[in-house]
Amino acid sequence: MAKGGIVWLTGLSGAGKSTLASSLSAKLAAQRPVELLDGDEVRTFLSAGLTFSRADRDTNVRRIGYVARLLAKHGVLVFVSAISPYAATRTEVRRAAEAQGIAFVEVFVNAPLETVTARDVKGLYAKAHAGEIPAFTGVSDPYEPPEDPTVEVRTDRETPAESEDKILSALRSLSLC
Amino acid sequence: MAKGGIVWLTGLSGAGKSTLASSLSAKLAAQRPVELLDGDEVRTFLSAGLTFSRADRDTNVRRIGYVARLLAKHGVLVFVSAISPYAATRTEVRRAAEAQGIAFVEVFVNAPLETVTARDVKGLYAKAHAGEIPAFTGVSDPYEPPEDPTVEVRTDRETPAESEDKILSALRSLSLC
Repeated sequence: MAKGGIVWLTGLSGAGKSTLASSLSAKLAAQRPVELLDGDEVRTFLSAGLTFSRADRDTNVRRIGYVARLLAKHGVLVFVSAISPYAATRTEVRRAAEAQGIAFVEVFVNAPLETVTARDVKGLYAKAHAGEIPAFTGVSDPYEPPEDPTVEVRTDRETPAESEDKILSALRSLSLC
Repeated sequence: MAKGGIVWLTGLSGAGKSTLASSLSAKLAAQRPVELLDGDEVRTFLSAGLTFSRADRDTNVRRIGYVARLLAKHGVLVFVSAISPYAATRTEVRRAAEAQGIAFVEVFVNAPLETVTARDVKGLYAKAHAGEIPAFTGVSDPYEPPEDPTVEVRTDRETPAESEDKILSALRSLSLC
């Protein structure tokens, strides 16, 4: 069985989490079992009906963590792309994985608010700044950056290839690829 | 990679689903990747807050199906033990699995209401018949038996070993063990 693990990409909406997770999981799929749990997609399957309150965000993050552990336990390298704004909840999910002997790689996908607001790929920041979306992470809802992530990528300064290389390097050092 | 699949045990509370799923998954774990998704446990992780209304029961069953497919896709034989009272929802989950090329074995764990009421392992039937538990499957909420299950076991007449053998035989015929 391959060595399972969880690569948890956290960061603001639009920072590049899903793009990185999707690209990396596609690249690694040729060499090892890989799964991609994208926050938006998982929410529709596991957490329809939950709101964006702190309690409901935490519930959503815990559910993703539970599914990721089930897969990692069976030798899958699971890429999770989820805003997961609260540090304590990310720590809880990390500890639950490590308690089962599962490697947990926290990747801080960091781009300043000005950058993601300027990009505004989905048009959400304009609405959030206009007050049309309540509880929008980074604008009207907190984002607690990781204090000690396994990897930090700066998608405002690095090319996608540079960011990917940093993550791959961390995975190699943990024998995950 | 081993051949993944889903063994879905449906039936009344107390019919013996969890006992069979637990025993079979323990036996097969020595020879192939296996996971057990027990309805009660999964509900706490994935569906806390959901009620026992039809809509919420269906949501719970769909979530279990989603997680089971993720695991089966990676070569895991997933035993699901869940009352899953509605035929249409079980069919939906089966079709979603088969659409991904995942073998789906529906096991009807059949014991008459009189038998499970007499056993009443958890003391729930006494309460349900007394009207103290609303929407209790088989008493005050529907259970739609499978019309064409892959396997039917009659836990009121068969020994546990006999029921297990019937399921194992079905799994062997599908090259799942």
